[in-house]
Amino acid sequence: MRALRYHGPLDLRLEHDVPEPECLPHQVKIRPSFCGICGSDLHTYLSPVIIPYKDTPHPVTGETWPVTFGHEFAGDVVEVGSDAVQGGLRVGDRVAVQPTICCNRCPPCKEGYPNCCNSLGFVGLMGWGGGMSDFVSVDARFAFKLPDNVPSDIGAMVEPLAVAWHAIDQTGIQPGGSALVMGAGPVGIAMVQCLKARQVKEIIVVEIVPERKDFAARLGATVVIDPKEQDVVAKCKELCDGQGPDAAFDCAGVAPTMKTACRAIRHRGVVVNVAFNEKEVPFQFNDLMIGEKRIYTSVSYSIEDFRDVIEALGNGLIDVKEMITRKTTLDRVVEDGILALMHEKDKHMKILVDVRA
Amino acid sequence: MRALRYHGPLDLRLEHDVPEPECLPHQVKIRPSFCGICGSDLHTYLSPVIIPYKDTPHPVTGETWPVTFGHEFAGDVVEVGSDAVQGGLRVGDRVAVQPTICCNRCPPCKEGYPNCCNSLGFVGLMGWGGGMSDFVSVDARFAFKLPDNVPSDIGAMVEPLAVAWHAIDQTGIQPGGSALVMGAGPVGIAMVQCLKARQVKEIIVVEIVPERKDFAARLGATVVIDPKEQDVVAKCKELCDGQGPDAAFDCAGVAPTMKTACRAIRHRGVVVNVAFNEKEVPFQFNDLMIGEKRIYTSVSYSIEDFRDVIEALGNGLIDVKEMITRKTTLDRVVEDGILALMHEKDKHMKILVDVRA
Repeated sequence: MRALRYHGPLDLRLEHDVPEPECLPHQVKIRPSFCGICGSDLHTYLSPVIIPYKDTPHPVTGETWPVTFGHEFAGDVVEVGSDAVQGGLRVGDRVAVQPTICCNRCPPCKEGYPNCCNSLGFVGLMGWGGGMSDFVSVDARFAFKLPDNVPSDIGAMVEPLAVAWHAIDQTGIQPGGSALVMGAGPVGIAMVQCLKARQVKEIIVVEIVPERKDFAARLGATVVIDPKEQDVVAKCKELCDGQGPDAAFDCAGVAPTMKTACRAIRHRGVVVNVAFNEKEVPFQFNDLMIGEKRIYTSVSYSIEDFRDVIEALGNGLIDVKEMITRKTTLDRVVEDGILALMHEKDKHMKILVDVRA
Repeated sequence: MRALRYHGPLDLRLEHDVPEPECLPHQVKIRPSFCGICGSDLHTYLSPVIIPYKDTPHPVTGETWPVTFGHEFAGDVVEVGSDAVQGGLRVGDRVAVQPTICCNRCPPCKEGYPNCCNSLGFVGLMGWGGGMSDFVSVDARFAFKLPDNVPSDIGAMVEPLAVAWHAIDQTGIQPGGSALVMGAGPVGIAMVQCLKARQVKEIIVVEIVPERKDFAARLGATVVIDPKEQDVVAKCKELCDGQGPDAAFDCAGVAPTMKTACRAIRHRGVVVNVAFNEKEVPFQFNDLMIGEKRIYTSVSYSIEDFRDVIEALGNGLIDVKEMITRKTTLDRVVEDGILALMHEKDKHMKILVDVRA
């Protein structure tokens, strides 16, 4: 079968003779239809920060390079393992896949935080195949049936939406509350949509790129602030009863964003670091102290996050059609996908691979 | 009466003709017996970071320089205001004073977080007199009777202990749990004693100064790590089931301490920033992300913290006699107190002013 495999930095190969995976008793075998290209894919393409190095197998999958790419995907069930039948999935069902890999043995796993597993991995990055291939088999508990009104391209958006949903869950923000989103890239926009679905009333987005500012405004931001034009902290206080938003989400991960978010939120407020930070940034902890503010972090998602996001998509509370700015094919992932996200990033939000095209 | 008053940086004056305060109906008038010299006093002596500038009155007290010094104090009730009688305090009672000043009107105050008041202040720093004087009148609800077995010099230690107690409260750490304390200065040692009183089982202290290492070991640390000799993160993991401590308290506030604490704690663990940070430090937020770790901050204390600390002192769960390394007099606060804390800080833990001597 075809699979787009990572052989190392700058070395992604579309191979045509990769063996088709078996469908083990606990698994379902899936024929992917759409698969998103993620920031992690981009990071990994450039340098092997996430995927185990060539000679160090991932502790759970036991795999090293080459590994199949693609962890944001949806597809059709083509086979159901003998032990998985009771789960209710049937051949022909359209599903979105929760791609986390965990060991099930370490303290975080045992305590119910598999997303904090000491050996955390992802299908499509650390082995067990991936969405950018003709077939992939996954644990049936991690395949979620899509409602009839949620097409498979939108199904490929469940994963990034679940990242946002999980981050919001950390904060305890309530319907009617107020939130600040730093950065209107794909994660920031997913955050806006999820905040809207959860009836957060004031959704303030901070962004400098004109295209992204427009996106944010169209997809649910109640206010968009350009930090080159306005004082973010003062504006946030003004918009939120003189106090500032209940929670902030740093979806940018550049030097000033955490600092600004910490200053802008209200007393006892929470800033969630969602972005992957390339490097150390200067930080003044006193900015948190006035008002006993807090910093939380958020890693991937839980089973429940996937269920909740799919339900919200089904109910029309989330609508991310507009986020899909391009569809490309398996043989053009680097040229039309990764390089476009690098060099034309202001133009693109989410690029999907139409895996069967 | 006598009062040690702050007239600006490097200008503390023992004055002998300060008017004695009235005792208003809601107040008790106190004759201070012992008053601690705090790190905040030291900071303020050197530069007016905390006290309002000369011509900007504090929004609640309305006072500017000069203000009387001393916010860690205990003394005897010499008068009870007419409305305060029902509170139960009587002339002759020995009390410790919770010195916070708040506006009672801002959202944090209304929501039950007066320690996060937008106009937060302290008796002994922002006006309404202070403990380094012959008399001071305070709101009767903020004066806490000391048990017979808690002498007044120990009563002057309630305030710094309450700082530690409040920080521990933020984390939800349980009896039998494990904690990491970065820095064994006065706040770090207070933290150790409060953690011990709360039956935290593993109390790991990180410190480089030999005298402070000894202090920590004598006052309740189960392990003292010198970061020049051992890898703090590795040692913490080893001591705590391979995972790391449940919570960490940064009582040092220097560049590497927050970073080390974040790396050392377990997944979903909490680092509380207790120290006042002089400046920005380089910080890598990814150090928090692996394992969804969190940073909390802690500001002063609540009414309940004062009650809890006094109860623990009465029950013998906290014993801080050894922390008092010197007693001096009102006319020697700069020479024997502030300068000693600056230039002989390894020798001293807490210096008290014997106000009546």
